Amino acid sequence: MQIKPPFLLFLGEKNHPLAAKMSRSIAQWRPELCLGELTSEGNDLTLGLDRLSIGQAAEAGAKTFILGLANSGGTISSNWIPYILEALESGLDVLSGMHQRLVDIPEIRIMAEKQGRILHDIRHHQGVIETGKGRKRTGKRILTVGTDCSVGKMFTALALEKEMKARGFDVDFRATGQCGLLIAGSGVCIDAVVADFIAGAVEMISPDNDPDHWDIIEGQGSLFNPSFAGVSAGLLHGAQPDYLILCHQVGRKTIKDLPDYAVPGLKECLEANLNIARLTNPDVALMAISLNCRDLASEEAHAIIEKVSEEFSVPCFDPMLTGVSTLVDII
Amino acid sequence: MQIKPPFLLFLGEKNHPLAAKMSRSIAQWRPELCLGELTSEGNDLTLGLDRLSIGQAAEAGAKTFILGLANSGGTISSNWIPYILEALESGLDVLSGMHQRLVDIPEIRIMAEKQGRILHDIRHHQGVIETGKGRKRTGKRILTVGTDCSVGKMFTALALEKEMKARGFDVDFRATGQCGLLIAGSGVCIDAVVADFIAGAVEMISPDNDPDHWDIIEGQGSLFNPSFAGVSAGLLHGAQPDYLILCHQVGRKTIKDLPDYAVPGLKECLEANLNIARLTNPDVALMAISLNCRDLASEEAHAIIEKVSEEFSVPCFDPMLTGVSTLVDII
Repeated sequence: MQIKPPFLLFLGEKNHPLAAKMSRSIAQWRPELCLGELTSEGNDLTLGLDRLSIGQAAEAGAKTFILGLANSGGTISSNWIPYILEALESGLDVLSGMHQRLVDIPEIRIMAEKQGRILHDIRHHQGVIETGKGRKRTGKRILTVGTDCSVGKMFTALALEKEMKARGFDVDFRATGQCGLLIAGSGVCIDAVVADFIAGAVEMISPDNDPDHWDIIEGQGSLFNPSFAGVSAGLLHGAQPDYLILCHQVGRKTIKDLPDYAVPGLKECLEANLNIARLTNPDVALMAISLNCRDLASEEAHAIIEKVSEEFSVPCFDPMLTGVSTLVDII
Repeated sequence: MQIKPPFLLFLGEKNHPLAAKMSRSIAQWRPELCLGELTSEGNDLTLGLDRLSIGQAAEAGAKTFILGLANSGGTISSNWIPYILEALESGLDVLSGMHQRLVDIPEIRIMAEKQGRILHDIRHHQGVIETGKGRKRTGKRILTVGTDCSVGKMFTALALEKEMKARGFDVDFRATGQCGLLIAGSGVCIDAVVADFIAGAVEMISPDNDPDHWDIIEGQGSLFNPSFAGVSAGLLHGAQPDYLILCHQVGRKTIKDLPDYAVPGLKECLEANLNIARLTNPDVALMAISLNCRDLASEEAHAIIEKVSEEFSVPCFDPMLTGVSTLVDII
């Protein structure tokens, strides 16, 4: 995969905090790769980058147009197609993290061929994946799991990798989603593999390693999200984690996009994850709890972090607010 | 999907009891559609049909060559390609239940185009699937779940549909695998959909229905099979079952193809399935236990069936040995 920087990030037509998740994460974790941002008319969402038209971005040297959006069906909106075509015409490659493939939309494929540009459908793995084998692998593995989608599983994993690297650990972030993959430059989007290969794909991206090597595997979905729990279950089995980090957004009451479903309690969620994870690693244990406290005042956040840490007898942190050093101290 | 009968069933080159699963099931449940069988040289496996060469079958009026094999990776063996090409040349369509698509093998695609024949890749759903919504649907749903793959989940569901139909119930078998789909003529192979859509695909094939209508949904895999448990978990959520039928092969000690993994006990397996199923239907309950006693003497089988029925206080049966009438009596 040769994704050419710098990027122009497309934020779409809706100012929805989750819709631009992929652009937001690349801007945060690899700002040096991001040249500017673009929205549809009337959308004032910003990531704080320079606002550039496609023409301006091309002139300034942008090489790839990032369709950095997320929606639950993963389809490419017809509203986005004119932007994609203009980007190709202006000499940019296009990268998408959607389920629906750019190459399956004839006008996009034809324009890319005509312009000699590359279409990156990063949600889709190129190459063979085997079914999971459940064989015990060497090396240490941490998996982030969550009470729901979009609660901080990737952020926590990346923050932990960064801090452990800084302290000299032999550690790798293993991407299982399109945002993580764009940041890491490798991985497999686990929610887009054929269902029979969920566990096998995770085994593939976190193979045997040195006894002192740490894989920090990015979790997906939640066992309590009725749309996507199958992915989370297969991921737990394939990851064969030694340790779980349980991630939760404080104050979220209902499952994303499904207001009839309640977000589970931490204890209930932990027990369910440990139960499933024990099939491929009977010794799996909770390592820490990562709370996303963005809706809380700082004082309130610190209080709840302390309370949860005491209740579960493990380090608790908000990776944005407190960092992850209390956890790395004990590792 | 227009699958033209009658069929010539290809049983492959290995005499393995599970490898010809798909051919075995169509021969058993729709014998009127099956004209004959064919194996590679040296394989004496038989389903009791006339043994015909491809030429003989074509002359006798066969319309579709059924690649009725199963292997855990779902790839099309290069050993099978000469048979597939000969079938196409002889004027037969070809149907495959493998993950790997016939249309993705250039020499097969080219031969089919040249001969004007149809390639049916029934593992792959044509058309849009939405993500699961978890919305409560009307009508009644039964799901067969199992301690492992290939223990009798499809057989139990089909036997129950047949008996309930005979007694005048409004009932439909809902296929989730390639064998069931070939028998039913519709359904979705749930293990071949993109992982994010497992639950959504099951919701799609068992939609809202009359209050007295019964869907009998074919289960897949097992929560205790580390290769495929993600599929089973998503299926449980999408099916939203009112009742589970727990299926088990008596005497099987280890998970299929994974000798390091033990087959779970019935109680443990039931609890795990109920726990997961409760997310989308808190009222889910065990309806019956289906034992596959093919390795037992008849007397021993009857004894164990009685014992399990008492232990769990639900009907217990072996659909091949005793039929399912004790269950339908209580429905």
